[in-house]
Amino acid sequence: MCRWLVYSGTPQLLETILYKPTHSLIDQSLHSRMGVETTNGDGFGIGWYAQDADLGSPAVFRETGPAWNNRNLREIAGHVRSSLFFAHIRASTGTAVQQTNSHPFRHGRWMWMHNGAIAGFPAMRRDLCLAVDPSLFAAIEGSTDSEVMFFLALTMGLEDDPPGAVARMAGLVERTGHAHGIAAPLQMTIATTDGESVWAFRYASEGDARSLYYSSRVDSIRALHPDVSYLKELSEETRLVVSEPLGDLPGVWNEVPEHSYGVVREGADELRPFAPA
Amino acid sequence: MCRWLVYSGTPQLLETILYKPTHSLIDQSLHSRMGVETTNGDGFGIGWYAQDADLGSPAVFRETGPAWNNRNLREIAGHVRSSLFFAHIRASTGTAVQQTNSHPFRHGRWMWMHNGAIAGFPAMRRDLCLAVDPSLFAAIEGSTDSEVMFFLALTMGLEDDPPGAVARMAGLVERTGHAHGIAAPLQMTIATTDGESVWAFRYASEGDARSLYYSSRVDSIRALHPDVSYLKELSEETRLVVSEPLGDLPGVWNEVPEHSYGVVREGADELRPFAPA
Amino acid sequence: MCRWLVYSGTPQLLETILYKPTHSLIDQSLHSRMGVETTNGDGFGIGWYAQDADLGSPAVFRETGPAWNNRNLREIAGHVRSSLFFAHIRASTGTAVQQTNSHPFRHGRWMWMHNGAIAGFPAMRRDLCLAVDPSLFAAIEGSTDSEVMFFLALTMGLEDDPPGAVARMAGLVERTGHAHGIAAPLQMTIATTDGESVWAFRYASEGDARSLYYSSRVDSIRALHPDVSYLKELSEETRLVVSEPLGDLPGVWNEVPEHSYGVVREGADELRPFAPA
Amino acid sequence: MCRWLVYSGTPQLLETILYKPTHSLIDQSLHSRMGVETTNGDGFGIGWYAQDADLGSPAVFRETGPAWNNRNLREIAGHVRSSLFFAHIRASTGTAVQQTNSHPFRHGRWMWMHNGAIAGFPAMRRDLCLAVDPSLFAAIEGSTDSEVMFFLALTMGLEDDPPGAVARMAGLVERTGHAHGIAAPLQMTIATTDGESVWAFRYASEGDARSLYYSSRVDSIRALHPDVSYLKELSEETRLVVSEPLGDLPGVWNEVPEHSYGVVREGADELRPFAPA
Repeated sequence: MCRWLVYSGTPQLLETILYKPTHSLIDQSLHSRMGVETTNGDGFGIGWYAQDADLGSPAVFRETGPAWNNRNLREIAGHVRSSLFFAHIRASTGTAVQQTNSHPFRHGRWMWMHNGAIAGFPAMRRDLCLAVDPSLFAAIEGSTDSEVMFFLALTMGLEDDPPGAVARMAGLVERTGHAHGIAAPLQMTIATTDGESVWAFRYASEGDARSLYYSSRVDSIRALHPDVSYLKELSEETRLVVSEPLGDLPGVWNEVPEHSYGVVREGADELRPFAPA
Repeated sequence: MCRWLVYSGTPQLLETILYKPTHSLIDQSLHSRMGVETTNGDGFGIGWYAQDADLGSPAVFRETGPAWNNRNLREIAGHVRSSLFFAHIRASTGTAVQQTNSHPFRHGRWMWMHNGAIAGFPAMRRDLCLAVDPSLFAAIEGSTDSEVMFFLALTMGLEDDPPGAVARMAGLVERTGHAHGIAAPLQMTIATTDGESVWAFRYASEGDARSLYYSSRVDSIRALHPDVSYLKELSEETRLVVSEPLGDLPGVWNEVPEHSYGVVREGADELRPFAPA
Repeated sequence: MCRWLVYSGTPQLLETILYKPTHSLIDQSLHSRMGVETTNGDGFGIGWYAQDADLGSPAVFRETGPAWNNRNLREIAGHVRSSLFFAHIRASTGTAVQQTNSHPFRHGRWMWMHNGAIAGFPAMRRDLCLAVDPSLFAAIEGSTDSEVMFFLALTMGLEDDPPGAVARMAGLVERTGHAHGIAAPLQMTIATTDGESVWAFRYASEGDARSLYYSSRVDSIRALHPDVSYLKELSEETRLVVSEPLGDLPGVWNEVPEHSYGVVREGADELRPFAPA
Repeated sequence: MCRWLVYSGTPQLLETILYKPTHSLIDQSLHSRMGVETTNGDGFGIGWYAQDADLGSPAVFRETGPAWNNRNLREIAGHVRSSLFFAHIRASTGTAVQQTNSHPFRHGRWMWMHNGAIAGFPAMRRDLCLAVDPSLFAAIEGSTDSEVMFFLALTMGLEDDPPGAVARMAGLVERTGHAHGIAAPLQMTIATTDGESVWAFRYASEGDARSLYYSSRVDSIRALHPDVSYLKELSEETRLVVSEPLGDLPGVWNEVPEHSYGVVREGADELRPFAPA
């Protein structure tokens, strides 16, 4: 339904990642290869942490039109550098196209974005909203399943234990779905961050989950492609997680296994199994 | 916070009512005289019943920018005729400026628009949403108090007994507000219609309610102003209900009394007292 | 680059033509089969003549987002009837996405829309603008080649002799292009109307012109498809001209030959050769 | 018609200047005190130079809605720092509300913004456009007088001699206006910059020019207000030029005299007389 991208690493102009690759996210907004829809033109968003340590929360720029023709996105991407940013392009399945339905969502220092859907969400929406912490309820601004999933995860401890909270959220969604007679309620790839670590999840109640890839370690890519000068400027820690590869360079892109999640952070990254709780 | 207008009567081009009067609603979007804010530039909407009997529900055109510079509004207003239409200009008090927060709201044949506010709405939002009929909950698309009030009224019988349902909605809002420690929870002028009758309410929990006016009977205006040729084309049944008068012609505008509601319909119109139930 | 549609005939709700066919123009906005681009998401417009004889000029509703997710378009299409309307979906090749660059363009009673391009337009823009009648110059609002072509045609007599004026415009564009070293300056399918007749042109300086089709006479379609009840309501005069067929019903769609133009009007329609003058 | 602001000095978060002052530019968008219109809600723009020396041209973010409710503006303002930026809020006098008509305009490293109008511009537009260097003509994207003034100034040497070029542009506008029978063709306050110096002009062909103010030297403001801690962080070089003062602190704001221009740059700023050439 959507496509997204996480960048974490050596500070870059956003456009280096968003526009320059052969099959960049902007290109995917018109010509997605692996998505359910080839066009992702129902809004977009980016969220970035500024390089000033004293700005608590990330900047979030969200719009309702397509990413491919948005001049303001190109301006920002050409003038803002960040070492950690999210980007998302949306293909709506009927929910209103409005700024508050574009990803990423933000709460304090946290960001969240999602590709997939809760099957039968309209029928479940009330039950799921009721499970959101009452003190958070008023902060729900849009009408998407994705935002409700974020608030459920926040309710269930996202800020203390992201993998546990996402597992509990997924479990609740599945139980609620089953209670409403939905056999396979959940399709999700999710990225969330507190500005330091990034957690990326891939899961489906049934069958294949939406595609998700992560980039290889920079040193191993360099060894494969000693002639690609661009790679020399990147730290070892630099990592991308994407709905679909940004190009065809061999050895760069690895599929995130079904039912698993990865953690990107300073030090060793991790890849672990995921199951709803 | 907002300004609105109801027209019911001889079929007119929308622009005759929306643009031509000296102090038209479009003029009020820039220069409101009686509103809490002089500028109402945070979105607008119109809703009209087409003159084809077979089209069940009204057309609703809603936007996020100001009415005064919207070319599409002017085009529609210059080419569409209707015998019953609503128009609304919004001044947000912080809620997102998005299409789904612009009035009028629609459900089947019904439309609804509101000026005013529920004091302390963020804290009450969850309780009020819970009181909405579960089968209607998924149809809430925006984040305004006004839309929740509409769904509460629908839950409480709007389609069968509009004054009773609005009274019950107002009662629930006041009780919920009091439970949250809000002394004066409700400020409202509301218009609602099923395409045949229009109900317009004016109420405040405390102090003056937002301004509301209705036009005099066409025959009495004609007697006062025999030289105004425009009036000759209007049926006796023609009536306007507006947040503030569209001009200064003496004898045309009458204040809706505090704590009352009016009914505009074929046959004799009515004006009655209103109290939350 | 774009796709367009002309309807002329028995008054219809716009949605009957715009949304209901299998491969409707709205579907083409996401999945064009014959266009240079599959996605036409850079703005859209409709223009219709209201059924009131006293409204001189058509209504034009133009937007900057994609047609497929525009709720206001659906509202208008579901509530407005017309016997003559234009619709256009845009795929920009770099020119700004803004209302004044969306088609159809209007001047008095006249409308104009275009698919194609003037090769090398930026370099020729000044020369072509200088050829516009000085009294019309200030009315150019956007930055497209299409709008300049319209104003050139108006300058060259569109209102008196549409085929002649379009031929003179095309001739000027080709001469100007050649002077700028462009071998094949013009690609165009154009529709224009005064509210009574419609002229549709197909031409390219070199090679295949953009696709263009017209619907067969209603009586012949009826003879082929006696079971299609929808056809019974249509007058013999009803005609569609479209960038690509709206469906696969055999015998309905005929290609407009290269280098020709058609006239749709009360009485016998015509198809004639076209050459720049 | 519009209001604008220039900041040059110690790097600041844009929000410090755009949102925090009592009578900030954002407040002026709703409640201008000195403008021809109190509401400036027909689009806005900001342009800033990033603090990376290697990014040649400034970022320009322009929108069509009001500044006061734009969430993306607030996000950018809260996360981007700059030592030189422009901001502009627009009140249209009829010209289309579109991104390409919002200020600031940009050409390479240069930015330009304007408050005022060319009287009788529609009639003069063609003559003025013809005077634009043919190689620049195709870069005109919008339909405002302000953008044409920018391209005329570029044609007449803005990049080499800004005061001379603006004087020649103003002279041409006045001569063209007089030729069209306009007695007082020009009203302007203009700001332009190459990223290092800023030039600000105030001029009217007749009568009072639009208001324009500059801030006092930081050391003299500090002497007057030793208790304002904020001032301690500002370099001596810091300077604001604004359509109307951002607050009421005595001794801070000085009117730019009629028919003069100022230069803000490293080293001593200047204030000089201005006359069309």
